[in-house]
Amino acid sequence: MTDTADTAERDLVLTRLIAASPAALYRCWTEPELMKQWFTPAPWTTIHAETDVRPGGASLVVMRGPDGTEFPNRGVYLEVVPNARLVFTDAYVSAWEPSQKPFMTVILTFEPEDGGTRYTARARHWTATDREAHEGMGFHEGWGKAADQLAALAATL
Amino acid sequence: MTDTADTAERDLVLTRLIAASPAALYRCWTEPELMKQWFTPAPWTTIHAETDVRPGGASLVVMRGPDGTEFPNRGVYLEVVPNARLVFTDAYVSAWEPSQKPFMTVILTFEPEDGGTRYTARARHWTATDREAHEGMGFHEGWGKAADQLAALAATL
Repeated sequence: MTDTADTAERDLVLTRLIAASPAALYRCWTEPELMKQWFTPAPWTTIHAETDVRPGGASLVVMRGPDGTEFPNRGVYLEVVPNARLVFTDAYVSAWEPSQKPFMTVILTFEPEDGGTRYTARARHWTATDREAHEGMGFHEGWGKAADQLAALAATL
Repeated sequence: MTDTADTAERDLVLTRLIAASPAALYRCWTEPELMKQWFTPAPWTTIHAETDVRPGGASLVVMRGPDGTEFPNRGVYLEVVPNARLVFTDAYVSAWEPSQKPFMTVILTFEPEDGGTRYTARARHWTATDREAHEGMGFHEGWGKAADQLAALAATL
């Protein structure tokens, strides 16, 4: 993972020590039935998830807001290391159909630490402006709440 | 390869039947010493090439114009099927550092046909505006001349 001055100003990062195995967290990020249980901070829900977990495979996650509005999120996996690392981007909606707006690449790492897992989610944007917009949209609170839900679910697996 | 109405207006395509094997054409696209011999239409030259040919591997090609100005082109491979298919993009300069401007994804296919190879190079842009700009910069003439040079070199391998 590159994290130079070139990317630092474009990154938003959440990192947390979670009392679950890397494998459990990886399952939560890759299995649709698990993803639907934790991915969106309540009162938002995830009503549909598809995950073709391989480089070039597509993902689709449909979130529903409190007022019933649905938000489909499409992406493509770029790098897959089972139980350790997952990279995907919204720059493509399938391999290799460009999306309307390349916004970010997400780099997830699951590292064994103190009997649990050091979970790090890095949202790397194409521009500093997009990073700021994402932060303003509530990245830290939203991803933080989702991480709480992720930790709670992973602990049961 | 997706080629729907969604992408057709964002694509520029060169296709040609070449009297060489898919393996020879693939070598020309992946081996730096070969790439330097054909990649830029004269009087432009390719003075340096690096190709880490695997998904997530980086490429660097430095072209030099007639007045001596150098133009580095960085990209990352997304899909690699030896002797058959190669996909790369300038949306990243390395795995996974976003470039300043995601411009295009290049999808190359090398298909056996009539004892030679059906060579297809598809430049897929993020926007129709970028496709038009690329066309205006001389895509068809430039890539056409390069394909002439590619065919001549591949025939000697």
